[in-house]
Amino acid sequence: MQHDLQHTISLLTRTPATLDALLRDLPQAWTFQNEGEKTWSAFDVVGHLIHGERTDWMPRAKIILESGESRPFEPFDRWAQARASQGKSLSQLLDEFARLRAENLSELRALDLQPEQLALRGRHPALGVVTLSELLATWAVHDLTHLHQISRLMAHQYREAVGPWNKYLGVLQCAGHSS
Amino acid sequence: MQHDLQHTISLLTRTPATLDALLRDLPQAWTFQNEGEKTWSAFDVVGHLIHGERTDWMPRAKIILESGESRPFEPFDRWAQARASQGKSLSQLLDEFARLRAENLSELRALDLQPEQLALRGRHPALGVVTLSELLATWAVHDLTHLHQISRLMAHQYREAVGPWNKYLGVLQCAGHSS
Repeated sequence: MQHDLQHTISLLTRTPATLDALLRDLPQAWTFQNEGEKTWSAFDVVGHLIHGERTDWMPRAKIILESGESRPFEPFDRWAQARASQGKSLSQLLDEFARLRAENLSELRALDLQPEQLALRGRHPALGVVTLSELLATWAVHDLTHLHQISRLMAHQYREAVGPWNKYLGVLQCAGHSS
Repeated sequence: MQHDLQHTISLLTRTPATLDALLRDLPQAWTFQNEGEKTWSAFDVVGHLIHGERTDWMPRAKIILESGESRPFEPFDRWAQARASQGKSLSQLLDEFARLRAENLSELRALDLQPEQLALRGRHPALGVVTLSELLATWAVHDLTHLHQISRLMAHQYREAVGPWNKYLGVLQCAGHSS
């Protein structure tokens, strides 16, 4: 389907509550384990989503609206959350993500973007020309990519425990696809 | 990690609220679309989870406890939800799933399973000998496999909308792995 701003906002609104329902007070055996070296735990993923709220989505939307293609976006640091999450609990991160997401969506709604604005173009440091519409659709799919990742990395913890069922469980066949 | 019954129950407890937070009242453009012929929508997946609560997990656990390997499990019908979900709304299915899961977990807790019971063996019609421990671990990973599937099939709807970002979004590279 085509990008629909109201559908995007509907999805973006639900992610904090979805992660809260899934992860809050879950045993650390699920939330602090990863899939091996240089991979993330659910805790790391929530930190990454927080970093995106602070530095990626709305800041980039504003760059497109204010400067168009003349000012490339700042590159996004995929490992920044390790520092920012240090010493925090998963509950604190879930609260912080929910607060930042609510603020960003409030700001997005206030912009009341019209089709001609959604067609405005910006410059991604690696991908080149992108539109505001593509940026906002990507924000939503980025949430889904990390929900996909969390379900996979949690399932990985029971790879042995499921015994012969492992070949029936699609999530255990997923190669990761980078996140 | 090894199977831990309390960890399994923690995860199983959270799935209805997770799906509720993600899906309830979301536009049908997200919840009634699938990934193409013979694939499922989020609505279909919730119907499938309901069917599992009714016919798969606890019924099979009871077969192991009562009959061991002497009585093979009934084969599970992966397409049964099409009939059972007919005429229902997604909200009704979410309510039904939450109710059945709560009942099943209440029954599971009441069994107060001990390590020697978790080691008991049953017979899967296709996989052969399995243990009660493996069945219960699979119940949890089955939830995760369908959360993984829902995130992927929803992301699929925005495959075009994200433009050049599609190559960065892992969920859009996922081949499905059967579910």
